[in-house]
Amino acid sequence: MEVTAMQEGTGRCEAFSDGIFAIAATLLVLELRLPHAGVEGSLWDELVALWPSYLAFALSFFVILVTWVSHHDLMRQVRGPSRLFLMANGFALFYVAYVPFPTAVLATNLAGPNIRTALACYCGTFVLGSVAVNLLIAAIVHERLFRPEVDERAIAHARRALRLGFLVNVAATAVALVLPWVALALSVALRLYWLRLRYQPTRSALRHAAP
Amino acid sequence: MEVTAMQEGTGRCEAFSDGIFAIAATLLVLELRLPHAGVEGSLWDELVALWPSYLAFALSFFVILVTWVSHHDLMRQVRGPSRLFLMANGFALFYVAYVPFPTAVLATNLAGPNIRTALACYCGTFVLGSVAVNLLIAAIVHERLFRPEVDERAIAHARRALRLGFLVNVAATAVALVLPWVALALSVALRLYWLRLRYQPTRSALRHAAP
Amino acid sequence: MEVTAMQEGTGRCEAFSDGIFAIAATLLVLELRLPHAGVEGSLWDELVALWPSYLAFALSFFVILVTWVSHHDLMRQVRGPSRLFLMANGFALFYVAYVPFPTAVLATNLAGPNIRTALACYCGTFVLGSVAVNLLIAAIVHERLFRPEVDERAIAHARRALRLGFLVNVAATAVALVLPWVALALSVALRLYWLRLRYQPTRSALRHAAP
Amino acid sequence: MEVTAMQEGTGRCEAFSDGIFAIAATLLVLELRLPHAGVEGSLWDELVALWPSYLAFALSFFVILVTWVSHHDLMRQVRGPSRLFLMANGFALFYVAYVPFPTAVLATNLAGPNIRTALACYCGTFVLGSVAVNLLIAAIVHERLFRPEVDERAIAHARRALRLGFLVNVAATAVALVLPWVALALSVALRLYWLRLRYQPTRSALRHAAP
Repeated sequence: MEVTAMQEGTGRCEAFSDGIFAIAATLLVLELRLPHAGVEGSLWDELVALWPSYLAFALSFFVILVTWVSHHDLMRQVRGPSRLFLMANGFALFYVAYVPFPTAVLATNLAGPNIRTALACYCGTFVLGSVAVNLLIAAIVHERLFRPEVDERAIAHARRALRLGFLVNVAATAVALVLPWVALALSVALRLYWLRLRYQPTRSALRHAAP
Repeated sequence: MEVTAMQEGTGRCEAFSDGIFAIAATLLVLELRLPHAGVEGSLWDELVALWPSYLAFALSFFVILVTWVSHHDLMRQVRGPSRLFLMANGFALFYVAYVPFPTAVLATNLAGPNIRTALACYCGTFVLGSVAVNLLIAAIVHERLFRPEVDERAIAHARRALRLGFLVNVAATAVALVLPWVALALSVALRLYWLRLRYQPTRSALRHAAP
Repeated sequence: MEVTAMQEGTGRCEAFSDGIFAIAATLLVLELRLPHAGVEGSLWDELVALWPSYLAFALSFFVILVTWVSHHDLMRQVRGPSRLFLMANGFALFYVAYVPFPTAVLATNLAGPNIRTALACYCGTFVLGSVAVNLLIAAIVHERLFRPEVDERAIAHARRALRLGFLVNVAATAVALVLPWVALALSVALRLYWLRLRYQPTRSALRHAAP
Repeated sequence: MEVTAMQEGTGRCEAFSDGIFAIAATLLVLELRLPHAGVEGSLWDELVALWPSYLAFALSFFVILVTWVSHHDLMRQVRGPSRLFLMANGFALFYVAYVPFPTAVLATNLAGPNIRTALACYCGTFVLGSVAVNLLIAAIVHERLFRPEVDERAIAHARRALRLGFLVNVAATAVALVLPWVALALSVALRLYWLRLRYQPTRSALRHAAP
């Protein structure tokens, strides 16, 4: 009974979260627009001139995808939702839903004189995201929502990695004002690092199930 | 057999509802737009000048999130859908899908002379939402769709809270024409109150399941 | 084993379908736009002048909701998907995804001289929808995908109702060119009739499960 | 235990994927826009003049639908997600989310002088899609994520078909620069061929379950 109620609860929270992740990632494409079509012969040039938009689209899609993988992993460790958990998760989703706006700002300014401001705004959004995810895991710990089989050390390790992520995002925002492309590289590197994070029990369960 | 059929039924109703909640919450970001990009040095000023849009986005995201939490909670008390229930739920979803429009009206007028009209339109939308949610719970009661273990007093308490919400929203709409910021504060306070609402059995089931 | 495989199969088909229903219904709100904001005192007039857009939004939301309820009901009678079924379902979803376009055409022309053309285009879209749903149920019958407990007479009854709907939609399209508001009324009446359609076994299962 | 963990894992990956498929397919409709409405008598002509947009919408919806069916089929053969699998799947979803942009380019140029460039861009997108799907199946094989009951020959057959698809898409991109309509026909033919692909065990399970 309790298990069913909890699974249903987490299930719907994940469905809502997945919806927001999927929509935010797909709405990014709406920023890809040709300035004016129909002039003969120039379509190829126009498509090439859109490179900042392609890059911003790919970057933000990658960022949302990695955030989704981490969220996916975290949710699997949770017994069920509490009210505080749902609000903290909602704040994290607010960040995800907001990502298309700084992406659009980045796309229109990546090849122009405002690249530093645009990238500080972009990396600053990730600071907001880091705050949200740190609050989410703090809420899960505070409400004791981790499943009993989740390893304490794995949780401590994940929290350290998320706090480090916060610091890296703050640093990237500052660096963006001076060396914008270094800030972008920092942001990508952070995601590659986060992708390697795991909660042990899930991983071994999967590995042992292999034939 | 009946339980399976009903779970499948509620499940798909929740999936459709979650979709609309998630999309409406994420479409809000499309209202965040820079007026014109490319003028050197002015990007920072343009980003700051968008504060009414950020505020309207955050407010409506919060409203939709709280509505989703309440809906989520209510659905868990329901045995399965009836036709009347699906129509009442559809009306509630119509309200949710409509929210991005008054949000856009609010965002473009919050810092201008039409703030009173814009906020009355915004709070008036919440009156529509209150009507929809009151109809939904009335349909659930009328069709006897609450699960047998749901406490009668919890239902009566929730109905009183939803009727109170209707009155608060009507009051906020009237107040908006005179003191717009007070109306906004009323709307936020109502959601903070609603967040504290619960249906007892679910809560204790979760608490007892803690290790 | 087979049941699991089939449930998973129908489940994902329903998840994809629900996504398209939910997105199409929510994208309708993007057609609600103020022509130009900021002129003092005129916001109220502008909001009132948008009545054709509100009406078109509400109508199409209602149409998509009823289509979703019917689809929901039909899917629950199906054992699992076949390739032909998925293609026929995809055609029905194509119709659903297309609805926002004739809705926008209707909204911009409902109060203007092109109301007849706009409504013929709107009702003509429903003819496409009727063709799609008739093909879908024909595919289910052809591939013998109905669950064994589904009553033959209920299927025959539903098919008659869907064929009648096709004829009503064709008639409404023709009527729209002469008496546009009568065509709109016909379209609404058809949905109210469809809402009363049911597949018997599901209904009685739900009723018998009542405490 | 392992089975539950895996099913939940694949389940959420499918939910996220379905979301992106459904949103990308439905966002296509936003490209259907009337140039300017209100001129008396010309609405019919304007609707007819949009034929390249209808065609591009229908084509891309069909492409996304077939991709979804293949994805749906492939996922059912997978035991559970690994990190590499999620990244490869994310790349495939990036392609799906990108499709609305070349569709818009095609729609605005199908009836104009830039049809060759627009179609090369459209078919070139499918090359990207083929690369993504080939990487996805390679990741599944590499990580040994296929369910034990999946037939080796079925996998080998699917991989050959996907490699062939890559070659056809490369050919179609080149042909588009000379004979654009032949390239379109090639793209459609490839999907009709892919639709016939299946993984045997699933199919027979469904057939044996027939009453």
